[in-house]
Amino acid sequence: MKIVGVDTIDVRFPTSRGLHGSDAMNPDPDYSAAYAILRTDDDLTGHGFTFTIGRGNEVVVAAIEALAPLVVGLDAEEAFADPSLVWRRLTGDSQLRWIGPEKGAIHLATAALVNAVWDLHAKHAGKPLWKLLVDLTPEQLVDCVPLRYLDDALTRDEALDLLRAHEPTKAAREAELLANGYPAYTTSVGWLGYPDEQVRELARAAHADGWTHFKMKVGLDTPGDARRAALLREEIGADARLMMDANQVWSVPEAIEAMRVLAEFDPWWIEEPTSPDDVLGHAAIARAVAPIRVATGEHVQNRVVFKQLLQADAIGFCQIDACRLGGVNEVLAVLLLAAKFGVPVCPHAGGVGLCELVQHLSAFDYVAVSADLTDRVIEYVDHLHEHFVSPVVVQDGRYRLPLEPGYCAEMHADSLEEHRFPWR
Amino acid sequence: MKIVGVDTIDVRFPTSRGLHGSDAMNPDPDYSAAYAILRTDDDLTGHGFTFTIGRGNEVVVAAIEALAPLVVGLDAEEAFADPSLVWRRLTGDSQLRWIGPEKGAIHLATAALVNAVWDLHAKHAGKPLWKLLVDLTPEQLVDCVPLRYLDDALTRDEALDLLRAHEPTKAAREAELLANGYPAYTTSVGWLGYPDEQVRELARAAHADGWTHFKMKVGLDTPGDARRAALLREEIGADARLMMDANQVWSVPEAIEAMRVLAEFDPWWIEEPTSPDDVLGHAAIARAVAPIRVATGEHVQNRVVFKQLLQADAIGFCQIDACRLGGVNEVLAVLLLAAKFGVPVCPHAGGVGLCELVQHLSAFDYVAVSADLTDRVIEYVDHLHEHFVSPVVVQDGRYRLPLEPGYCAEMHADSLEEHRFPWR
Repeated sequence: MKIVGVDTIDVRFPTSRGLHGSDAMNPDPDYSAAYAILRTDDDLTGHGFTFTIGRGNEVVVAAIEALAPLVVGLDAEEAFADPSLVWRRLTGDSQLRWIGPEKGAIHLATAALVNAVWDLHAKHAGKPLWKLLVDLTPEQLVDCVPLRYLDDALTRDEALDLLRAHEPTKAAREAELLANGYPAYTTSVGWLGYPDEQVRELARAAHADGWTHFKMKVGLDTPGDARRAALLREEIGADARLMMDANQVWSVPEAIEAMRVLAEFDPWWIEEPTSPDDVLGHAAIARAVAPIRVATGEHVQNRVVFKQLLQADAIGFCQIDACRLGGVNEVLAVLLLAAKFGVPVCPHAGGVGLCELVQHLSAFDYVAVSADLTDRVIEYVDHLHEHFVSPVVVQDGRYRLPLEPGYCAEMHADSLEEHRFPWR
Repeated sequence: MKIVGVDTIDVRFPTSRGLHGSDAMNPDPDYSAAYAILRTDDDLTGHGFTFTIGRGNEVVVAAIEALAPLVVGLDAEEAFADPSLVWRRLTGDSQLRWIGPEKGAIHLATAALVNAVWDLHAKHAGKPLWKLLVDLTPEQLVDCVPLRYLDDALTRDEALDLLRAHEPTKAAREAELLANGYPAYTTSVGWLGYPDEQVRELARAAHADGWTHFKMKVGLDTPGDARRAALLREEIGADARLMMDANQVWSVPEAIEAMRVLAEFDPWWIEEPTSPDDVLGHAAIARAVAPIRVATGEHVQNRVVFKQLLQADAIGFCQIDACRLGGVNEVLAVLLLAAKFGVPVCPHAGGVGLCELVQHLSAFDYVAVSADLTDRVIEYVDHLHEHFVSPVVVQDGRYRLPLEPGYCAEMHADSLEEHRFPWR
């Protein structure tokens, strides 16, 4: 089977009209996907995308097109047999590398293509992606992982030891997840653009539906944040976990000052308190706001920054993003780093299709890497799932494991056509 | 005067044919520029660009086009009166921000447009950019500087104090630079793709021409690096300064190991020893290789990463890049940070037009910020200057200050046409 072409589509949803997804940094996002379809000389197609919030999606599409020649013509079975081949090609082009390296538009595009190849791989194997990964040996898995620049924190042998330690007990955890699902939290109740009454009603309904972890947006003004936090606590009670997300709006001293006020509402974590590039700033905030823990990741550009966040004790939760990192291979590196440092992984999701992707990553993480569900929840947002061929199923606050072959990345052809940008 | 349009051009030079610019990470660069021309309803045009090394330049051009609507229609005099207006607009678009933020293709594009507005501003003022900046008051300068996310390292008041301290003595330093120029170093002798004999001849000629600082590329194999370092030392003597540049090829332990061997040749700095994202890695290397100092910057994505490199004592030289940082405004932030931490700024140059730009930044740095030339040299590479309307003049190893109005960013119309990509 040969990869014979890459089709790209600029897909955008007009979510800003309802202020869904609104927060202190992003007042009016139009949830979008820079979408890639790998065509083969067989019946199978591989689907992958990266998530953006509207304008600029066309730049990422241009970046996918710049990378496409590096996968077109590939023997797919060769790529499956050496599952870091595509990663190495896409991140190793010395000229394209310059406009990153491994960050920004070119890395988002790398994610779309790397993920599309994994989707194709899993479909070809007839397994959901999580199961394809779970069934690899520790040696095969480590061969997938880009360890470059990590060896001061994680050597190849340490990665192997981590995976081997939990190898004998994988089957039991797989059965457990299939029976019970993976715990989730909801962000759908607390968008900044929603009026107080809407927040209250959504929180009440979600609490009644069995949700136990709720995330609210903060950062526009601290008194307003406190008012909404109080209102949420009234609805969800003292025992439920309340997370706060500032979406990068604060400087380091501003974050510390705001959390001094908001600590009263017992937040479980403060997410993106400042610039996602500021490792030392996150570490300073973490020291100052403890026992509240710091979470970040949806804008953490690559494994090198995650390595440092872990080395510096800057994060208490590691929020991998399936498309900000350069696809499955780089996510594996971060799962291993987080396990080495003992930090729970709670993926960023929502957007377009991120829930569909990260459920695979967390399932694999539990079965093969962390072997622990303590303090681990996947974000859930109830938007746009209807556009996916295999949408997530969330019941009683838990993701049910997907069983369809592939990475659940495929959108309906009609949805792609209807939401192709520019809109008609 | 109104900005009425932005023309973009994908300009590429086939430099890979002569292995000019070749190093351990970039074996065959085609030096390129994503070029922008601001048209006004007046005779003046503003020129700006960002540097890339070939493939992917079209992605940066697409990013400039995505940002262009944010400057088209602007009243230019209003932008000159509030010289951070364009910076705030370009980095503040909440949707476009997602594909960075402030990094990768969108930030390179920001640099091209921010620099084009400063070129227009300086032409309008009838001054070279360095002189336009030098003539601003400390208050006006600080208003240009994006201080967001910096206040744990540099407050507005500290920035003002730094500028005010050297205000009374600016005129003397300006006269000194006009008389003597700014010291430079050459990278033209040590490209990895050049055979030993070519390196030897170039070094001998440069030494005879009065150069005192020489940079060589390292990182492909340590014994080969040692052989070439020995050969260079033979030509330039023990007193000349020899710098080494690994262009990110090493991991942290690899960098430390290689420098243990190469220390014998008394390198003044080791540049880009590892991933440009690895602040803690640079700090570990700096501790291990002292008294050799660590230099980095040409791939440092923004002021937040420079802030941390300085906070962590990770660099002994701060190598600003006029186009990797988001243009003049963000460069000013890094010049102030470096002054606060007492680290000399030695700009990255070469490529396409970087020498033309950074001479303005270093001149301003000396006159208004650092007031010190100790350990400060601007990189010089003798390629592609003939395409610029006001090319740099380097004599006796020193940059002569440019006197033409503008930022020296303008290329000849013929050069732009001839090298427009795709090549005919």
